Amino acid sequence: METITNRRSIRRYADRPVDEALLNSLLKEAERTQTMGGMQLYSVVVTRSAEGKARLAPLHYNQPMVTAAPVVLTFCADFNRTVQWCRCRKADPGYDNFLSFLNAATDALLYCQNFCTLAEAEGLGLCYLGTTLYQPSDIAEVLGLPKLVVPVATITLGWPAEHPEQTDRLPLSAIIHDEHYTDYTPQAIDDAYRDKEALEVNRQFVRENGKETLAQVFTDVRYTRRDNEALSAGLLDVLRRQGFLD
Amino acid sequence: METITNRRSIRRYADRPVDEALLNSLLKEAERTQTMGGMQLYSVVVTRSAEGKARLAPLHYNQPMVTAAPVVLTFCADFNRTVQWCRCRKADPGYDNFLSFLNAATDALLYCQNFCTLAEAEGLGLCYLGTTLYQPSDIAEVLGLPKLVVPVATITLGWPAEHPEQTDRLPLSAIIHDEHYTDYTPQAIDDAYRDKEALEVNRQFVRENGKETLAQVFTDVRYTRRDNEALSAGLLDVLRRQGFLD
Repeated sequence: METITNRRSIRRYADRPVDEALLNSLLKEAERTQTMGGMQLYSVVVTRSAEGKARLAPLHYNQPMVTAAPVVLTFCADFNRTVQWCRCRKADPGYDNFLSFLNAATDALLYCQNFCTLAEAEGLGLCYLGTTLYQPSDIAEVLGLPKLVVPVATITLGWPAEHPEQTDRLPLSAIIHDEHYTDYTPQAIDDAYRDKEALEVNRQFVRENGKETLAQVFTDVRYTRRDNEALSAGLLDVLRRQGFLD
Repeated sequence: METITNRRSIRRYADRPVDEALLNSLLKEAERTQTMGGMQLYSVVVTRSAEGKARLAPLHYNQPMVTAAPVVLTFCADFNRTVQWCRCRKADPGYDNFLSFLNAATDALLYCQNFCTLAEAEGLGLCYLGTTLYQPSDIAEVLGLPKLVVPVATITLGWPAEHPEQTDRLPLSAIIHDEHYTDYTPQAIDDAYRDKEALEVNRQFVRENGKETLAQVFTDVRYTRRDNEALSAGLLDVLRRQGFLD
């Protein structure tokens, strides 16, 4: 499928709006995604206003896509709507727990991915912001998310104004396991990462960061233990605050 | 995109194998999915053997698709491979925490969804098993998953031997929010669920279960508080056991 084979993340957008009818038709079409028990445990907050983007930008580390994109979509794990439904229908919901969070997050992420594929098939470009999980509590506050709603993914969306190189991927043998997980020997690691490490763009990345290996760029610069541990505490805290964890 | 617009979950499969080269080409193509920092924090265990399926079946509540499908795919959140790489490259990984689990689960789920879309575009049929999150600890044991690997999704895959009706979906207005989350009034809940509740298949579902409302079928029969709470405890336990939670 060309849409997937040729995809790349798009961070620069043309000065051209994303038509609301088109956006809604894509969001509607993505609703065909499989969903747990047909419950559709997700919501999407659509941000188009300059003020809304300006409030979200610092919560995504001021990545320029947030204010530059015509549309920002925040995909939320949402058990609130289902629970409100239960309360209106004499049913006693028991979804204020961790399994329910993961079920809703799963629904939201699968829906999000299908939306991305549909949008890219229309020629739109997008960037998936992993930063949504870094400061979810502040995002929840800015977007007014009630209990049992947690943001899990953000997409900046627009018409592409760039056509970057595709990034590298591991050989398939590195990610599939036949019948049983076979742990990685140093030889298997060498085989999996050899091509990645040999790429000039990655070698340059190592040099720029003054590191010895590419892996050190990840552990020492991009995704450090200190950051991960602090952000993990915040993430567990927002799950408690939003009612998914005792 | 017809593949998504026309999709339905397929639970009955033709007596026809899924060619390994085709499967691998789809798994490979799905690798183009966006991934955090290019790390590809996922693995897939491919189960084709009757013995392997028989071991997995009870962990998925003996849903008949598990043994009937030619292929069962278990998609795992996997930081193990990346950590092994770090250890082989003089880098000190800090990924034994909750944020890292959610990052890896996200990667695995987005990859899984694109795999599903690609497989369905080839005419294959599949069913997504939400039960993966119910007994992840036993699944981890059966598949031999090491620390920092947790199963998050399972797909049963084969050539369709049925063409079921599509299931209902909520109106788009029920899932999107303009700039800010607007909580649901009883009127908004009525508007969102009116069509779903009026469907004959859902009315029958209420009668069969001896309930008064459709919501009660969810809260009292399908996804009960008692089950959710017990399964949540098991889920948190497997995250601890696999090293993602203190």
